[in-house]
Amino acid sequence: MLSQDHQDALAAIVGPAGLIVDAADRAAYETPARYAGGVAAAVVRPRTTAEVSAVVGYCVRHGLAFTPQGANTGLAEGSTPDGSGTHLVLSLDRLTAPLEIDVADRTATVGAGVRLSTLNAALEPHGLFLPIDLGADPTLGGMAATNTGGARFLRYGDMRRHVLGLEVVLADAAGTVLQLSHGLRKDNAALALRQLFVGGCGSLGIITAVTVEVHHRPRQSAAALLVPRDAEAVLALLQAFEAEAGASLTAFEGMSRAAMERAIAHVPSLSNPFAGGVPDYAVLVELTRSWTPREGEASLDEVLQQIAGDLLERDDSPLVDALFGPAEKMWALRHGLSEGLRASGPVVGFDLSFRRRDLARFRRDATLMLEADFPDFALCDFGHVADGGVHFNLVRTGPADPARYHALREAVLTLAVDGFSASFSGEHGLGRAFQDAYDRFTPRLVQDYSAAVAAVFGTGSASVRLGPALKS
Amino acid sequence: MLSQDHQDALAAIVGPAGLIVDAADRAAYETPARYAGGVAAAVVRPRTTAEVSAVVGYCVRHGLAFTPQGANTGLAEGSTPDGSGTHLVLSLDRLTAPLEIDVADRTATVGAGVRLSTLNAALEPHGLFLPIDLGADPTLGGMAATNTGGARFLRYGDMRRHVLGLEVVLADAAGTVLQLSHGLRKDNAALALRQLFVGGCGSLGIITAVTVEVHHRPRQSAAALLVPRDAEAVLALLQAFEAEAGASLTAFEGMSRAAMERAIAHVPSLSNPFAGGVPDYAVLVELTRSWTPREGEASLDEVLQQIAGDLLERDDSPLVDALFGPAEKMWALRHGLSEGLRASGPVVGFDLSFRRRDLARFRRDATLMLEADFPDFALCDFGHVADGGVHFNLVRTGPADPARYHALREAVLTLAVDGFSASFSGEHGLGRAFQDAYDRFTPRLVQDYSAAVAAVFGTGSASVRLGPALKS
Repeated sequence: MLSQDHQDALAAIVGPAGLIVDAADRAAYETPARYAGGVAAAVVRPRTTAEVSAVVGYCVRHGLAFTPQGANTGLAEGSTPDGSGTHLVLSLDRLTAPLEIDVADRTATVGAGVRLSTLNAALEPHGLFLPIDLGADPTLGGMAATNTGGARFLRYGDMRRHVLGLEVVLADAAGTVLQLSHGLRKDNAALALRQLFVGGCGSLGIITAVTVEVHHRPRQSAAALLVPRDAEAVLALLQAFEAEAGASLTAFEGMSRAAMERAIAHVPSLSNPFAGGVPDYAVLVELTRSWTPREGEASLDEVLQQIAGDLLERDDSPLVDALFGPAEKMWALRHGLSEGLRASGPVVGFDLSFRRRDLARFRRDATLMLEADFPDFALCDFGHVADGGVHFNLVRTGPADPARYHALREAVLTLAVDGFSASFSGEHGLGRAFQDAYDRFTPRLVQDYSAAVAAVFGTGSASVRLGPALKS
Repeated sequence: MLSQDHQDALAAIVGPAGLIVDAADRAAYETPARYAGGVAAAVVRPRTTAEVSAVVGYCVRHGLAFTPQGANTGLAEGSTPDGSGTHLVLSLDRLTAPLEIDVADRTATVGAGVRLSTLNAALEPHGLFLPIDLGADPTLGGMAATNTGGARFLRYGDMRRHVLGLEVVLADAAGTVLQLSHGLRKDNAALALRQLFVGGCGSLGIITAVTVEVHHRPRQSAAALLVPRDAEAVLALLQAFEAEAGASLTAFEGMSRAAMERAIAHVPSLSNPFAGGVPDYAVLVELTRSWTPREGEASLDEVLQQIAGDLLERDDSPLVDALFGPAEKMWALRHGLSEGLRASGPVVGFDLSFRRRDLARFRRDATLMLEADFPDFALCDFGHVADGGVHFNLVRTGPADPARYHALREAVLTLAVDGFSASFSGEHGLGRAFQDAYDRFTPRLVQDYSAAVAAVFGTGSASVRLGPALKS
C-alpha cells in the first residue's frame, strides 16, 4: 500500500483522477491478457510527457518500483506488477496526444497511449494504415516497446521497421526526456540508441511518443487455403509463392489440424471449409495490391489461382489441394485459432522463432518428444511460416500439475533454443513470464552487456525495478 | 612508424603477408574515396575472426590506435587514418570466409570482407540478390557498419533491415567476440544490441561476419523519366505513384537540371534524352516485379504508361511530361551524375536526409541562400526523394578558398539541421569528415549517452581511437 505522502505527491502531479488506489479500480491494470495477475501499490496515469517525467523522477528519487503499461494486452507478463503489492503501475493510457498524420510524408506521430485501432481509424480516410496485424488492440507505445510482429510481417516487417522516431523518459532522478530522431527515414548521424528502446520492453525507459511510417491500404486482396503434401513441403510451397507473387504476398500462415479442429469445434461462427475433412496442415496464403484492377489486368484471385494451378500440375508438387473463397472467411479461421484453443482447455503458449529451414525439423523432433514424454498435452501449433515464427501452443488434456507444466516448458525451450538456436520470444517481447528463460538461455555475455547498457540509462539502480528482464 | 617489436608481434598473428608497412603498399589503404588521405603506421590484415580478436586485444593492451576498414569505398572519411601516422589500419579485406547461402531460408552468412558484387554473383544462380543498390562495391562488413542505403531504399530499405545477425569483436584487452543473433527474422529475447553496431561505423567494435536476408531478383522492370510541374509537385507525383504502383515502385530518384546537364556534357556515353531541352527537374521512376508477365497480364511498361497517362490527363496534374524507354539508359543518366559533377569542377558533397514534406521548402530556402551568399558554387542536387535523402552537392566555379568552403558547409548544415531537423549523414555513416558536424549538431544528450554506451563496450579508453565520432 502506497503511503499517504506518496499518494499526495503523485496526485499533485497527475491530478486526483490520475491516481488509482482502490482495489476494484486497480484490477484491470493488474490482470494481464495471459499468465497470472499481480498486485499494484497504485496505478499512476500521467497525461503528458512532462507528467511522466515528473512521476518517474519522483519514483526514482524515492526508490519506488514501477512497471510501465500500455493497453495491457501483452502476452509476456511484461506490463503488470508482481504479487508483492509494492510496485506502481505507470499507465500510459491517458497519453493520447498528439495524434498527427502527415499524408505526404506518410508518417504519423502519436502519444504512447494511442491505440492501434484509433490510429488506423484516423488514417483510413487517407487510404493509409499501419500494417501491423494482430489479434489485440495495443497502444503504439506498447507496440514499440515490445517490437510487435504479427501476421503481415512477411511483407511489412515489425514495429522496428516502422518506428522513425521516439520520445522516451529515462528512469533517473531527473526523469530525463530524450528525443531520438524526428521522423527521418534515413539517419546515420549518431548511434542508433532508438533501436534499444524498440523491443526494450521498458527496461531502459518509458516511451511517451512514437513517429511511425505508414502505408497505403491494399485495394485488392485474394486468399486461399493451401494443403501442402506434408510438413516438409511447406517451405518449398513458401519459396514458390515468394518467387511467383513477390511483394504481393502479404501472409503465409501455417495451421495445424489440431488447432483448426479446435477452432471449428468451439467457435460458433466457423465451419469446416475442407470438403474431405481437415488436413494435417494448411496454409492461409494472401495476396494484396494497393491499386484497383486496371483494364486488361488479371484480378488477384486469378493470379492466385494460376500460381496454385501451376503448382498442382507439377510432378512432385509441394501442393496437393487449394481452396479459394472470400478472404474474410479464411482469416476468420486463422484468427479463431487462439479462441478455439482456449475454449478446448488450458493453453500452454510458446512464441518461438526459428530460421525457416529449421521449422519442419523442430516440429518433427518436438512432436516425437511430446508423444513420448508429454502425452497429456496436445500440440496445436500455428504460426507465421515466412518469418520463422511459431505459436507452438499446447492444450493440456490431463489434470493440472505445476511440476509437469514446468518440465514441459523446460523441455520445449531446451529443444528449441539449445537444439535450433531459436528465440524463446519471437514477437511477444520480454516479460516477467520469460525471466527464467532469459536467465537460462540468453548468452551470459549478452546479458552482461545488456545490463551494463541499461545502467547507462539510469536503470541499473537496484531500488528501481523497471521492466522485467535486464537485471542480472 | 610502428616499432619492430609491434611489427613482429602483429606479424606473428596475421602472418608476414598480413602486415603492410611499406609506404607504397599502404597507399591504397590510406586514400579514401572522398576527402583527404591520411598516414597509417601500418596496415594489419587478419584472415579470421580469431586473428581479428588477437590483433584487437594486442592493440588495446599496448595502446595502439586503429581504424577498421572494409573496401575503403566510404564517403565520410570513416575508414582511413588521420595524418599523424600513429594509427593502424585494421583491414578486413582478407576476411572473405564464410560465404554461405541458404536458399530456402533466403539468407546469406558472409565474412566481413566479402564484397557486395561477390555475394550477388553467388546469389544470382538462385535468382536471389541483396537489393542494396549503390555506385561503389563495398564489403558487407562496411555496409553493416555504415548502414548503407541506396537507390532502392524506397522498396527494400537499408542494411539495418537486412542484417539478421552479426559477429563482432570488441575493442577490449581480450578482443571479446560477441555473437549477436544467428539469422532469426524475429527475436525479442534480449535488448537489440546488434542494432548499435549497424551504423555504428566501428565505434563500438569490429564487425567480422554478417547474416543478411536476401530477396528474389526482379524479372520485369520498367522505367520512365518524369517531368514534374515544378519543385512543389514532386511530392504529389511521388504520392500518386506510391498509391498506384504500391510495392512495385522500386525507385523514385530526383535529378536537378544542373546535375543532369553536367552528366550529359561530361560523360561521353550519355546523350540528352529530353527532346525539348533538359527540364528544371526530372524524376527517374522504376517499377519492378519478381515474376515474368502472366497470360493476359499487362506488362510493367504498360502499367507505367497507364499511370503516367492518367496523371497527365488530370487537371492541375503534378506531371507535365513523361519519357519512356530502356531502363538501362535512364539509370545510366542517374548513375552518371556523380561523374558528371566531378568532371565539371571540385565537388562539395552533402548527404542530407529530411522528412519528405520538408524537401521542397529546404531546396527553395537553400537556393535563395546560395544565390545570395555563395554565387561561386553551383547547386547540382539529386537524391532519393521517397526516403527524404538528398545528395545536396555543389560544384565550385570560383577559386579555391578553404575559409569559404567552411562557411558554405556551415551555412548549408545549419539551414538543414537547425532549420529542418535534417540529418547531416543520411546514408554515408559517421566518418572523420563529419566529426565537426557531430560535435556541433548532434544533441548534447545523445552524444553523452552514446559515449557512455561506447564505454560499455570497451571503447571508452582515451588511448584507443576506434571509429571517428563518439568520443566527447
